[in-house]
Amino acid sequence: MKKLNTSPISGMQELLPEKQAIFNQMKRQIEEVYRLHGFLNIETPMIDRTEILFAKAGGETEKQIYRVYKTGESAEESREALRFDHTVPLARYVTEHETDLAFPFRVSQIGRNFRGERAQKGRFREFYQCDIDVVSRNSLPIEYDVDVILTLFEALEKILPRKRKLVRISNRKILSGFLEELNLQEVKDEIFSIIDHAEKVLPEKTRENLESLNIGEERVAQVLAFINLSGKREAVLAALRGFGFENETFKEGLEELDRVFSLLESQGLEKSIILDMKIIRGLDYYTGTVFETILPDFPKLGSVCSGGRYENLAELYSEQKFPGAGGSIGLTRLFSVLDDSGILPESEVKKPVDLAIIPVSASEVDYCFGLSEELREEGKNVDLVLADKKLGDKLKYASKIAASAIVIGPDEVASGNYSIKTF
Amino acid sequence: MKKLNTSPISGMQELLPEKQAIFNQMKRQIEEVYRLHGFLNIETPMIDRTEILFAKAGGETEKQIYRVYKTGESAEESREALRFDHTVPLARYVTEHETDLAFPFRVSQIGRNFRGERAQKGRFREFYQCDIDVVSRNSLPIEYDVDVILTLFEALEKILPRKRKLVRISNRKILSGFLEELNLQEVKDEIFSIIDHAEKVLPEKTRENLESLNIGEERVAQVLAFINLSGKREAVLAALRGFGFENETFKEGLEELDRVFSLLESQGLEKSIILDMKIIRGLDYYTGTVFETILPDFPKLGSVCSGGRYENLAELYSEQKFPGAGGSIGLTRLFSVLDDSGILPESEVKKPVDLAIIPVSASEVDYCFGLSEELREEGKNVDLVLADKKLGDKLKYASKIAASAIVIGPDEVASGNYSIKTF
Repeated sequence: MKKLNTSPISGMQELLPEKQAIFNQMKRQIEEVYRLHGFLNIETPMIDRTEILFAKAGGETEKQIYRVYKTGESAEESREALRFDHTVPLARYVTEHETDLAFPFRVSQIGRNFRGERAQKGRFREFYQCDIDVVSRNSLPIEYDVDVILTLFEALEKILPRKRKLVRISNRKILSGFLEELNLQEVKDEIFSIIDHAEKVLPEKTRENLESLNIGEERVAQVLAFINLSGKREAVLAALRGFGFENETFKEGLEELDRVFSLLESQGLEKSIILDMKIIRGLDYYTGTVFETILPDFPKLGSVCSGGRYENLAELYSEQKFPGAGGSIGLTRLFSVLDDSGILPESEVKKPVDLAIIPVSASEVDYCFGLSEELREEGKNVDLVLADKKLGDKLKYASKIAASAIVIGPDEVASGNYSIKTF
Repeated sequence: MKKLNTSPISGMQELLPEKQAIFNQMKRQIEEVYRLHGFLNIETPMIDRTEILFAKAGGETEKQIYRVYKTGESAEESREALRFDHTVPLARYVTEHETDLAFPFRVSQIGRNFRGERAQKGRFREFYQCDIDVVSRNSLPIEYDVDVILTLFEALEKILPRKRKLVRISNRKILSGFLEELNLQEVKDEIFSIIDHAEKVLPEKTRENLESLNIGEERVAQVLAFINLSGKREAVLAALRGFGFENETFKEGLEELDRVFSLLESQGLEKSIILDMKIIRGLDYYTGTVFETILPDFPKLGSVCSGGRYENLAELYSEQKFPGAGGSIGLTRLFSVLDDSGILPESEVKKPVDLAIIPVSASEVDYCFGLSEELREEGKNVDLVLADKKLGDKLKYASKIAASAIVIGPDEVASGNYSIKTF
């Protein structure tokens, strides 16, 4: 009988040990891929200054920031809040520790972030993100965008083998140049936002949204034609070049996208990448390459991994220009949807514990402590079952959590011989 | 030039990548020992209901709890706060998931907790704790106390090899029975608190504190004699038995302590354990065995690992009795003091990255992506140096972060042969 409501707060993921083991396994696999790709792990505090966190946040994100204050202190005077992503603390970190870091700084961050989202299925208030970034000073070659995408793709391959993945890629310079060419800079933010929402609404709604900007029928048609471009490299690039625009930003975007795509193709990803002009990544700070990854067989999952290129990571904190490329796997959400769909990866271990060692009575406990240690030194994980239960109950417990069991009674202690019972 | 203060909030640990790697290594080693000892890992949300968190907290802890609220919401209406330890969320977890768990539930929790401590050296507001607990229903044999101490000791051996460790052990039943026998139950909390502080003040101050309770000179002397008992099992137990008390709680405590000590001795810990009546573990919820671990060569470190036995983990949340034994390594504080003292463990890897692969120009990038993947499949971690720097600068960067480097120019691409430069 419970005396209090003991469920976790809504929007929090709390797993039973078996599921937690699978979650941890996926996290370890991601960590290992990041490590093999030379990314150095760091951790930043989960609580940071509001002036740091609010400097970048805006709109929806700002409303979702959890502020913190100590019991007995004034909430209004608090200048502290919970981080809502890894990028803002990274910008602070790079600014703070610039002189101690080697650039380009290849960095990974894996941990929980917090957003006070409205409670709904698949939305988490506390969620793991697994980020990588390459941050440099002044300039960073376009090839790092490929490096980041390849690393993230490999991590997804590791945690979701045999599941189709599709990386949808664009470059924001193309859209920016396109809007400059059409003289639409004044409504640039609005158009970015309309495109960003285009997949969540009916096509007619997108047209209506564009028409409401009063930009004339011809330009509405051009923007619609633009955002519907998606497919293989040659076809989409040819269509984009077909606009005949001489705008420098537009042409730079095309060149970058071509280079990124060629390299990804030659690394064996040609069947897993698509050029898609609908990819914008919201009103985020991206300035060039942007990408999202979907699992085509599980459309309701949405993007499981996204990122892009930003020209100036820490512009709000530092005079120094830090361009970078990065991306993130949203592990909590991914895990949750896979779980709901019944397609979680299998655990590498069949049972949480390899061996349960069961002393028949308290007299054999001492011997069993020693035996457990010996077996652990062989690399086995061992649960010593000391509970004051009947032997049958101990074996029942052992069968639940262990792959096999060893029962130790006076004979076994005397002879040093024992048999292993496999469940 | 910074535009804002970008230092982390005081009381937060933020490490450079090299130090973070050592921290992560220690954390992994602890995780591995816990795993080998059959503890199942779980994670609980960092944000929980105030009614859960405040149900147990009291005194200093309560004042240190960080409350959270969403931007734009009323701070007063918020019913959410950050967890301040792993034990309270575990009590909620066990109550909530009771029917899905196998008991005795061997559980590990490794993660950050939060306390709004006053900022001072060695006090952290956000800190890793590495907990293990064995929780059962109705009863749990005393031998699990040994199991927990052995596991924690082995974890400390792993992260701090070749450093002397001393586990100071007591049993709160002895002091409770002792106070009953002396008719001091009315000032029990005060005496527990005085003993708990006895090592932070001069001996005269402890005497004064006891005298201020107006319990008579004789009883002051008896309590002082009691708390100064420490040493080997036989000597201390003989002295305690010498009091000649027939109190049941007192005798039960002696028996338990004797059993715990005997088992630890026979597992090879006799030189690493001491019976010490000053060990109380504050006004915590412990009811039997209590222990703290110190590194005698580093006295200023204080206790690096502590825990004990509790008879009723979730008494505030459930009608079900959940007795348990548990303990925790305070990793953030331990790491910080080791670091300040210049005695951090060495990193298992000399350089963060095994290999840096350096294409001479953009033409070799494609080849280098493929080569990097090949080497990663051999288990090497590889940083692909794509920066648009001169070759000399690329090598300088590589020498900082990598153990060796491979430079790839047109000849290497043509021949498929390359040489490895070791730094």
